Amino acid sequence: MTSQQLSVKVALNSWNLVLERADKIFSNLTEDQLLKEVAPGKNRLIYLWGHLIAIHDAMFSILGIGPRLHPELDAIFVSNPDKAAAQIPSARELKKSWDEVNGKLLSEFTSLSANEWLLQHRAMSDEDYAKDPTRNRLAVLLNRTNHMSYHLGQIMLARE
Amino acid sequence: MTSQQLSVKVALNSWNLVLERADKIFSNLTEDQLLKEVAPGKNRLIYLWGHLIAIHDAMFSILGIGPRLHPELDAIFVSNPDKAAAQIPSARELKKSWDEVNGKLLSEFTSLSANEWLLQHRAMSDEDYAKDPTRNRLAVLLNRTNHMSYHLGQIMLARE
Repeated sequence: MTSQQLSVKVALNSWNLVLERADKIFSNLTEDQLLKEVAPGKNRLIYLWGHLIAIHDAMFSILGIGPRLHPELDAIFVSNPDKAAAQIPSARELKKSWDEVNGKLLSEFTSLSANEWLLQHRAMSDEDYAKDPTRNRLAVLLNRTNHMSYHLGQIMLARE
Repeated sequence: MTSQQLSVKVALNSWNLVLERADKIFSNLTEDQLLKEVAPGKNRLIYLWGHLIAIHDAMFSILGIGPRLHPELDAIFVSNPDKAAAQIPSARELKKSWDEVNGKLLSEFTSLSANEWLLQHRAMSDEDYAKDPTRNRLAVLLNRTNHMSYHLGQIMLARE
């Protein structure tokens, strides 16, 4: 393994570790528990679940690794706050999308070579990337791992 | 820049980004605000601040980049839960340790070469590292970045 391959592996391990923690929590919550807020007046667990699915799904386009699977989730879970939508997907539907999006992501992640992780992501212009080559796919992966950790910390508050 | 140097730079950027967000929040909270809980019955902001300082301080030993600056914080902010200690450091003292620990870490981080980041961390035996070379310094950095993001998500709940 080259040192670059090893670095990418470390980053993917980090993503997987946080994902497994989140998966274990979400997959074991009842419909009732999912309606709990993480703190009084804050987001409900079900909203954060949908939010993570939508943000992960958007990684397909940002990383340029295929079409999005669930762009329809953005309106409910990204562009609008919790409790704004008249109807939201059921726990069963979310579980299905969660597994589908994260499963497909993982398979695309592992098919990228170590050097492909250092190529610019799609939200960057050629000009900006030339100025700052750290704006690459690996940076997106680490950023989204932090994003998931951020909400995982909130989710844990509502668990007990 | 080699691809391995670029990967390390991306990981350090990610650490710095989360650190700057946390720094901005903590440095602007009053003593009163620091006593607020992130959710009813959960950790106070001041406890999470001390907790992050102690965990970051422990990175000196785990990464093998020098002696710890504040091992005395562990008893208050790591081995015991919030509200267990009779007395805890003031906001002013915490601010001083926070700046000191993170400043020194950053300077040690940037003095490590890209390949030194892939060497095993001190909490690993030679034998375990031989079996799994992803248990390296870079993995510790990403793990602690996730840890900080996790608590940052909680801290944000108490801000408004």
